Amino acid sequence: MSQAPAVEAIGIDVGGTFLKAARVGGDGRLRAHIELPVSKGSADDLLRQMQEAVRRLEDAGAAQAVGVGLPGIVDASTGRLYNAPNVPALNGLDVGRELGRRTGRPCFAENDANAAALAEAWMGAGRGAARLLFVTLGTGVGGALVFDGRIWGGTSGYAGEVGHLQADPKGLPCGCGSWGCVETIAGVPGWERRARRALAGRESLLKDAPLLDPATVVGAARDGDPVALEVVDEAAAAVAVGVASALNLLNLDRVVIGGGVARAGDFLLARIVEQTRRRTFPHVFADAEFRLPDLGSDAGVVGAARVGMLGVPARAAS
Amino acid sequence: MSQAPAVEAIGIDVGGTFLKAARVGGDGRLRAHIELPVSKGSADDLLRQMQEAVRRLEDAGAAQAVGVGLPGIVDASTGRLYNAPNVPALNGLDVGRELGRRTGRPCFAENDANAAALAEAWMGAGRGAARLLFVTLGTGVGGALVFDGRIWGGTSGYAGEVGHLQADPKGLPCGCGSWGCVETIAGVPGWERRARRALAGRESLLKDAPLLDPATVVGAARDGDPVALEVVDEAAAAVAVGVASALNLLNLDRVVIGGGVARAGDFLLARIVEQTRRRTFPHVFADAEFRLPDLGSDAGVVGAARVGMLGVPARAAS
Repeated sequence: MSQAPAVEAIGIDVGGTFLKAARVGGDGRLRAHIELPVSKGSADDLLRQMQEAVRRLEDAGAAQAVGVGLPGIVDASTGRLYNAPNVPALNGLDVGRELGRRTGRPCFAENDANAAALAEAWMGAGRGAARLLFVTLGTGVGGALVFDGRIWGGTSGYAGEVGHLQADPKGLPCGCGSWGCVETIAGVPGWERRARRALAGRESLLKDAPLLDPATVVGAARDGDPVALEVVDEAAAAVAVGVASALNLLNLDRVVIGGGVARAGDFLLARIVEQTRRRTFPHVFADAEFRLPDLGSDAGVVGAARVGMLGVPARAAS
Repeated sequence: MSQAPAVEAIGIDVGGTFLKAARVGGDGRLRAHIELPVSKGSADDLLRQMQEAVRRLEDAGAAQAVGVGLPGIVDASTGRLYNAPNVPALNGLDVGRELGRRTGRPCFAENDANAAALAEAWMGAGRGAARLLFVTLGTGVGGALVFDGRIWGGTSGYAGEVGHLQADPKGLPCGCGSWGCVETIAGVPGWERRARRALAGRESLLKDAPLLDPATVVGAARDGDPVALEVVDEAAAAVAVGVASALNLLNLDRVVIGGGVARAGDFLLARIVEQTRRRTFPHVFADAEFRLPDLGSDAGVVGAARVGMLGVPARAAS
């Protein structure tokens, strides 16, 4: 049994609906945690809520640092949050600095997908890997790169956008300004749109489904429904274009595919892996191990706490 | 004026036709150089030729180290050369070790595109950049990543294959085993094939061209020929899919586009840049500076010498 190091940090995961916070040990385990509906009225409301969470989690003593996972891009040079439609009050704010001022603790903010990737790299499905790609399949398709236990943010912290690689040159416009991105096909709205189209005039288990979400489609595909299988395979191929591009470019040793859609589990993962194999050099494919995440819904707070522990160098000097 | 450091290394660039070797100073300048038809009979012939080149370049005194650029993949863990159709005699060989044994100097081998990229990063168009993508447009489309002055080889040294990202999901089979790769469109044979197809039944300056190579096609496009412009723009779009993927994934600060095809100069570069802009996040695009190479045909030997100077850490601990 390994001894838990004394280092403890507080991780805060700010989502569009809930704010989760936890005190996390150097062994990656949660010592205490809080979950609250997020205060979205103003930046001040939300910062006060975070400050209060830190105070409550420090009942057992001061934490070494605080890390915050935010649903947007944290600019590496300014520390400011951008592209955060789910917490508009925080847009443009240097959350790390503001919360640091309020709590008196070293506070560091990071994009939430980056934080979750860091958690998986630290204590989850990315453990032991030196070069990890983490993909989140949800409404959007996000991603993060973790090299040697640190986030690869690139020049300004915008790296990892595997969902916005072009998978279809004749594809639909994407919210990012480009078109035919992986996300336009493999994001949740893409599943529904493609399922409707595939269903037209055909018999299928999906015909009377109340919702054409990925879980429903994957369920029908598992039961052998040809229409559903088509829809699954289109998504798998699109994700594979992104993953294969990352592999041929970076010769990575681990790929972790998470997010809500990935809860479809091995059935979808196996198809993504096979489509990736077809698009990569054999030796490049052989170097990469594919996994589903280990940490589940704790990844956000564990990763945020890890951001706090690592401080600014949570990002490599990239 | 800066003082040249005393460090000097020998760089050897082994091509399919010529072997170039040079003694290079710590200032990146050539002190002496040799160019010979490459001895391709056997591994022993070629190694003896390299050994002899080192001996001749050491007339002025022993060099600190020797670096060799090879037209294939140098496996990071074994040091062995793979995928080298132009120098089949060396396939499977640990060239660094063999040449080291013969010369008594520390010898290090590296893929030639990686070496050229390292040279540009060190003393050329990549100078001052922390995160460089180097693209070579030739018969094939190659690439290399240089982070903080060192090659990013990935797990086994196979990283950088920007030419084998999928640009067209309905595209032609590629030599790499995948299909629709950037290289199938933007490699020299792709230019010719697409020009023939575009010409069918149309008036064009290209109609009586003896050769439909990139230089001819770009020349006609420059003169406003609509058929030639189509062919150029298809190539530019394919390269842009690769470059944009690298930028959205890695948020790089420099892209250098070299190789024979890129000698078409700013006309082609400007089109690649514009097509890349359309496929990247605005802030990601803004972070990247695009350039043509500075070093010309010396990049191979300068980069190989730099490999020698850096030794094993020519590659980042990636």
